Amino acid sequence: MKTVIDLNADAGESFGRWKLGDDEHLLPLVSSVNVACGWHAGDPATMRRSVELAKGAGTALGAHPGLPDLAGFGRRALAMSPAEAADACLYQYGALRGFADSLGVEVTHVKPHGAFYGLTMRDETVADAVADAVASISDELVVVLHAGATAERVAARGLRVAREAFADLEYDENGHIIIEPQPLPKDPQECAEKAVAILGGMVRTTAGTWVDIDADTICIHGDRPNAVEIATAIRERFAAEGVTISPMREVLAER
Amino acid sequence: MKTVIDLNADAGESFGRWKLGDDEHLLPLVSSVNVACGWHAGDPATMRRSVELAKGAGTALGAHPGLPDLAGFGRRALAMSPAEAADACLYQYGALRGFADSLGVEVTHVKPHGAFYGLTMRDETVADAVADAVASISDELVVVLHAGATAERVAARGLRVAREAFADLEYDENGHIIIEPQPLPKDPQECAEKAVAILGGMVRTTAGTWVDIDADTICIHGDRPNAVEIATAIRERFAAEGVTISPMREVLAER
Amino acid sequence: MKTVIDLNADAGESFGRWKLGDDEHLLPLVSSVNVACGWHAGDPATMRRSVELAKGAGTALGAHPGLPDLAGFGRRALAMSPAEAADACLYQYGALRGFADSLGVEVTHVKPHGAFYGLTMRDETVADAVADAVASISDELVVVLHAGATAERVAARGLRVAREAFADLEYDENGHIIIEPQPLPKDPQECAEKAVAILGGMVRTTAGTWVDIDADTICIHGDRPNAVEIATAIRERFAAEGVTISPMREVLAER
Amino acid sequence: MKTVIDLNADAGESFGRWKLGDDEHLLPLVSSVNVACGWHAGDPATMRRSVELAKGAGTALGAHPGLPDLAGFGRRALAMSPAEAADACLYQYGALRGFADSLGVEVTHVKPHGAFYGLTMRDETVADAVADAVASISDELVVVLHAGATAERVAARGLRVAREAFADLEYDENGHIIIEPQPLPKDPQECAEKAVAILGGMVRTTAGTWVDIDADTICIHGDRPNAVEIATAIRERFAAEGVTISPMREVLAER
Repeated sequence: MKTVIDLNADAGESFGRWKLGDDEHLLPLVSSVNVACGWHAGDPATMRRSVELAKGAGTALGAHPGLPDLAGFGRRALAMSPAEAADACLYQYGALRGFADSLGVEVTHVKPHGAFYGLTMRDETVADAVADAVASISDELVVVLHAGATAERVAARGLRVAREAFADLEYDENGHIIIEPQPLPKDPQECAEKAVAILGGMVRTTAGTWVDIDADTICIHGDRPNAVEIATAIRERFAAEGVTISPMREVLAER
Repeated sequence: MKTVIDLNADAGESFGRWKLGDDEHLLPLVSSVNVACGWHAGDPATMRRSVELAKGAGTALGAHPGLPDLAGFGRRALAMSPAEAADACLYQYGALRGFADSLGVEVTHVKPHGAFYGLTMRDETVADAVADAVASISDELVVVLHAGATAERVAARGLRVAREAFADLEYDENGHIIIEPQPLPKDPQECAEKAVAILGGMVRTTAGTWVDIDADTICIHGDRPNAVEIATAIRERFAAEGVTISPMREVLAER
Repeated sequence: MKTVIDLNADAGESFGRWKLGDDEHLLPLVSSVNVACGWHAGDPATMRRSVELAKGAGTALGAHPGLPDLAGFGRRALAMSPAEAADACLYQYGALRGFADSLGVEVTHVKPHGAFYGLTMRDETVADAVADAVASISDELVVVLHAGATAERVAARGLRVAREAFADLEYDENGHIIIEPQPLPKDPQECAEKAVAILGGMVRTTAGTWVDIDADTICIHGDRPNAVEIATAIRERFAAEGVTISPMREVLAER
Repeated sequence: MKTVIDLNADAGESFGRWKLGDDEHLLPLVSSVNVACGWHAGDPATMRRSVELAKGAGTALGAHPGLPDLAGFGRRALAMSPAEAADACLYQYGALRGFADSLGVEVTHVKPHGAFYGLTMRDETVADAVADAVASISDELVVVLHAGATAERVAARGLRVAREAFADLEYDENGHIIIEPQPLPKDPQECAEKAVAILGGMVRTTAGTWVDIDADTICIHGDRPNAVEIATAIRERFAAEGVTISPMREVLAER
C-alpha cells in the first residue's frame, strides 16, 4: 500500500454573479488545486481569488482547462482536434499564469476538466496533444491524466504525468470514471474507503468487480455539495493509516 | 526630431471562421505587434499563428487585451472597475503567454485595445490599475499608453511606459485619438506624413491646430484594409529621413 | 392612493450549472415575471423552466433583455447605440417567444435588465429605441420603463408603457434607483412600507427627502436572497390595505 | 424528373466586425434563406439586415440554429441531449422571430446548421426532438432535414419536413454529406450538374456509386467564396431544363 499521495480538488468554479463551491474551506484540506480558467467556469476575479486562496493555504496551484461551454459547464463532449486541444490547454494555462505571476505563485500542473478530460481518456491523439502542449511550456509542469494505459504510455515517453484516481466518482467495468452532469452529495466515509482502496492499488467498479489502479493523486470535486466533508473524512482516514498527503510533484519525485 | 522609434501594429484579429487583416505581410514591416487575446478577437489557433508569425519576423510580441465583447470588437465602452481592468489584463496577457512559452518567444509589452484603451485615456484609476497589473508580472514588461499626461504620470511612478501615437487615426482638439468603429482605407502618404510629424513632436488635430506629442511608438491598425500599404509608406519615409525602427523596449532604453 | 397595481419579479436568472433565485416559490407571489433571456443570465433550459413556472402560476410572462455580459450579470454599463439597444430587445424578446409559443403562453411585456435599464433611464434615445422596438412587434406588448419623465414622454407618444417603481431598491436624490452589483437581503417590512408609499405616489430618497412617483408596477429582484419573504410581506400589506395585485396590462387598461 | 424545387442558402453568417458571404447578391437568387441566429454566427444587427434582405428579395425566411460555438462556427460536434437540441431550436428560432415580427416577415422554416445538422443525421432522438420542437411552435413551420430515412420517418409522423440535398457538397458511400470545416470554391457547372441529378432522384458519391435521393430543397452554402456563381449556374440550368424554383412550403404543398 502506498504511503504518500496527492489529494487534489477541482475548484474556482464560480462565475460572476454565480457562486459554486466552498473553496475557502476546501483548499486548506488538499495538497493540489485545479483552478477553472474561464471556458467552462471561472471568471478573472474568481481566478485571482483562487490563486490567493491557494497561496494562503500553501496548496499547489494547477490549471484546469475546460471546453468552451459555459452553459454546459464543460461537461458536454465537443469534437476538438488534437491541435485545438493543445491550444485550449496553452490558452487556459496561460490565463491562470497571468494571475500566478502577478501574485508570485508557481503553476505546477495542468488537468483537463470534465468532458475535456473525457476526450483524453477516449482519444489517444488528444491525450498526446495535451501532454505535449504541457511539456512544451516547461519540463517541470505536470500533466494530470486518468490512471491507466494512456497515462503510462505518455509517462513512458518521458513526460511528467500524474496518474489520477477519483474518491468521489463511480468506475464502470472498464475502469473508466462515470462523469455526472451535476454532482450530488456522496457519503464521506465511502469516499474515504475508496481512497484507501486506491492506495492499495484497487478500485471497485459499478459491476462489483475490482480493477487495478496505480495513482499518484486522488481527486475531489469542489462543486460536490459536501466536498469539504469528503476531504475531511479522507484526511482523517489517511492520518489513521499513516498516509502522507503531498503535492503531486513531490509524489512523482519519489516514484 | 527623434531618430529612433517603435512601429507597432494591432494584429491577430481574426476569429475562427472569420479572417481579418493581412498579418503575414504586415508583421515583417513593424517592430512590435499587439496580438488580440480572445476577448474582442483572436481565437487560440489565431493566437498561436500570430506568435509564430512574430517569431518568424523577429517582431517584438505584445498582448492586446480587449473588453469582453466579440460582437462589438471591443470598441464599445464597458464600465469596468479598476480591479476588473487589472484582471482583464492579467488574464489576456497570460493567455498569450501560454503560446509564447510553448513557442519560445518572450512577451515584451501589453497594450489595451479599442474601448479598453479609451478607458485608460479617460479614467486615471483604470490607467493606474492596468499599469500596476503589468508591472506586477515583471519589471521588464512594458505597458503602452496614449502619449500624454497620464502616461507621463505613470512613467514618473517608475513604471515602464511606452507613449503611443497613431499614424492612421485623427486627433481631436484635446489631442485625443478618435476611435473608428470600423477602419476605412487611409491615404498611406498622409499617414507617413503624420508619422514624421510625430517624430518632430507635433500632431495636427481635426480642428487644424497642432498639439505637442512625445511618442516612443507609433501605431498602425491591422484591420485597416490598406494597413500593409500604410506600413510600407511609413517605412520608406523613415528610411528617407534616417529614422531607425526599433522595438519599444530598445526605444525606452535609449530614452 | 392607488388600489390596483402590478407586482413584478426579475427571475430565470440561473445559468447552466449555477442556480440563482427561488423562482418556484417566488412566481406564484407576483402578477408579472421578467425572464432573463441568455445575455446576462438564463440559458435555454432555464428559460423553458421559467415559462413553465409562469404558466403554472398564471403569472404574466415578460422578457428581461440584458446586456451581453454574463461575467458582469448585465450590471456593467455597455455603450450600445440606440439601434443596438433595439436589436438587443428584439433578439432576446424573440428568444423567449420561442419557448412561449412552444408552451402556449403569451409574452405580455419587455423590461430591460440592470445596466440596460440604466441606459434607458439616462439616455432618451435608448429609451425611445427600446420602446419603438417593442411597439414594432405588437401594439399589445408593454414596455416597462422607470417611472418618470421619460416614461411619461414615451406614453404620450401613444406607446404602451408600464411605469415602474422598486420596493427593494434605494432611490437617490434625483429619484433614480441605485442599482447594486449584488443584492443583499433587505428587511421585508421596510420593502412593504416602501411599496405602500409608492401606491400613495411618494418614495423616500437616501437623502431623506420625498419624490413623487406614479407607478403601474412594483419590482422585486429575484436574485435577492430573501425575495420570497419580501414578496410575501408586500402581499400581506397589500391585502390589509385592500390593494389588488393585477398583471400590468390590466393595470394599464384601467389607467 | 422533378420540375419544381426549392433552392435554399445558408446566410447571415457575418459576426460583428467580421464579414462573410455576399448575401446581398445571393438572396435574390434563391427561394429560401436560412439565417444564422447568433450561436455559431450572426449578431443581432446582421440578423436584422438578413431579414431586410429576405424581405426585399421576396425570399422565404428561415432560422438556421447552430451549436453554441462561435470559435468553431458550429462545425464541431457538441454532445447535446435531445432536450437541449429542442431548446436550442426554440431559442434561436425565436431570436430570429423577434426581427421578423418587427419587420413584418414570416419565418417559414427551421434548418439546423453544420454539426447540429450532423447530429440530426446521426441521432434519431435528436432529429425527433428538433422536429417536435419546430412543430410545437406552429403546424405551418417546416423543419429541414437531410433527405433520407430519418426525414421520411419524421414526415410519416405527420410533421412538415423538407427533405434536403446539397449541390455544393460531396456525398460519402452511405449517401451522407461530407461537411467541410471551411468551404473552398467549387466549379459552378459541376454544382449545377449535381443539382439536376438530384432532380432526377440520384446523387453520385465520392466512391463513384449512385444513391437514390428524394429532395424538396437544394442547398448552397453562403460562406463558399463563389456561392453567387454557383447559384447563378444552377438557376441557368434549371431555366434551361424548365424547372421552377419555389419556396419549400409550396414545394411541400404540391408533393
